[in-house]
Amino acid sequence: MTDASKDSFYRQGFMKTLGAKLVSIEKGLVKLECDFHKKLTQQHGYFHAGVLTSLADVACGYAAHSMMPAGSEVLSVEFKTNFIRPAKAAKIIATGEVIKSGKTLTFCEAKVTDETEEVIFATMQATMICLKK
Amino acid sequence: MTDASKDSFYRQGFMKTLGAKLVSIEKGLVKLECDFHKKLTQQHGYFHAGVLTSLADVACGYAAHSMMPAGSEVLSVEFKTNFIRPAKAAKIIATGEVIKSGKTLTFCEAKVTDETEEVIFATMQATMICLKK
Amino acid sequence: MTDASKDSFYRQGFMKTLGAKLVSIEKGLVKLECDFHKKLTQQHGYFHAGVLTSLADVACGYAAHSMMPAGSEVLSVEFKTNFIRPAKAAKIIATGEVIKSGKTLTFCEAKVTDETEEVIFATMQATMICLKK
Amino acid sequence: MTDASKDSFYRQGFMKTLGAKLVSIEKGLVKLECDFHKKLTQQHGYFHAGVLTSLADVACGYAAHSMMPAGSEVLSVEFKTNFIRPAKAAKIIATGEVIKSGKTLTFCEAKVTDETEEVIFATMQATMICLKK
Repeated sequence: MTDASKDSFYRQGFMKTLGAKLVSIEKGLVKLECDFHKKLTQQHGYFHAGVLTSLADVACGYAAHSMMPAGSEVLSVEFKTNFIRPAKAAKIIATGEVIKSGKTLTFCEAKVTDETEEVIFATMQATMICLKK
Repeated sequence: MTDASKDSFYRQGFMKTLGAKLVSIEKGLVKLECDFHKKLTQQHGYFHAGVLTSLADVACGYAAHSMMPAGSEVLSVEFKTNFIRPAKAAKIIATGEVIKSGKTLTFCEAKVTDETEEVIFATMQATMICLKK
Repeated sequence: MTDASKDSFYRQGFMKTLGAKLVSIEKGLVKLECDFHKKLTQQHGYFHAGVLTSLADVACGYAAHSMMPAGSEVLSVEFKTNFIRPAKAAKIIATGEVIKSGKTLTFCEAKVTDETEEVIFATMQATMICLKK
Repeated sequence: MTDASKDSFYRQGFMKTLGAKLVSIEKGLVKLECDFHKKLTQQHGYFHAGVLTSLADVACGYAAHSMMPAGSEVLSVEFKTNFIRPAKAAKIIATGEVIKSGKTLTFCEAKVTDETEEVIFATMQATMICLKK
């Protein structure tokens, strides 16, 4: 399952574009990181809200995927992101966690922080759906 | 105001990374487009949810900005995206619209569609905040 | 289908508590109304955000239900409400509409307005799930 | 501040309608409870999604209010609720917590659980705004 999640992660062209890296995948808990780069900025030179959201989405998606039966695929149904403060950091870390895993839907939460994981830039609530092959 | 919005848009390194282009800025209504590229994909080869969301966020942000006093800056407070169907398209179009513009907060909605603007891939509800210089 | 939706509506004890009435159910479009009463207020004497949300949720739920196969039940997966302005009105109207109806999930939008349906107090994006008997 | 929050809570006609009670108000953390009653049900006889949401909203609102300067008023800007499982319980408890308190906006999270506070029925992310008198 973990390997399937890793394979799927590295098939996402967009993760390469962001320079995102998988830090860890446990059952129901996924951590990603991404270094600051000018190509990821909004108009004030900080990490773009879209980058924070993309990482949080993927962390939630693979957290959900890690608890699904072998051969399942995961898709985002919806998510909401709140932006707590400007994301000024050399690196951001996105942690996605499964709150409730169901047969069809999985509900996850994520936070995006600085390297210390103590300064929160954004939080997400997300619904993921399991597609059986 | 329109020029300030354009300038601000092109200062976003992330928009260049996505290959996003401003199609139009009117008062309270902004349209962006983005061509399909492998660097923007999720694991099945479609546009990534994070790309759809980033474009919708920026369309909302500049729609809000276009109605703010000169010299204002705009930041995303929060947004929610619902994903209606897989985003298989040669090009996507994000349209952001101001629903209610206040002194501090502006409430916007966006949709992301295919080229015909008839097939909806995602919708967003967003709150933007006006920062005075 | 319409009758099943009506029956289900009137089985909701909470709708009676609010004094909510079904105005119309068409396929994918449901309208409710609710008169102002002190029992529905927040601390400034206007309609409570929870009342606006409850009506919008139910309008979305039955809009979704009206497009499901006979014998289906509907449950709310999640919703988000934005509050546009204080809800000072003698009566509020909640209109829920199906944006995309799928086998399992249905995506809806709703607005809550005054009697003229022109002054918007709140908007909702909601995901509903179909439970088969 | 705590007393001002209590006064404001008991001015909400809708809280009396629900039979909601303030359990505790600390700085940035508010707990409410509400006993089951048929007048609060959806079509299957459980607590209505609108009731869960209303309690979560109010718990967030007063958590935010408890950190605002004396004489401030609080209004809900927006919130999102995810429904984790049907709310079958003799009593529900809503706990709202401030995640980030700013001069204008306060970001809160809430959960609604059963009496043990271990079975989660719903979670909320909410943005509150401070209105100065």
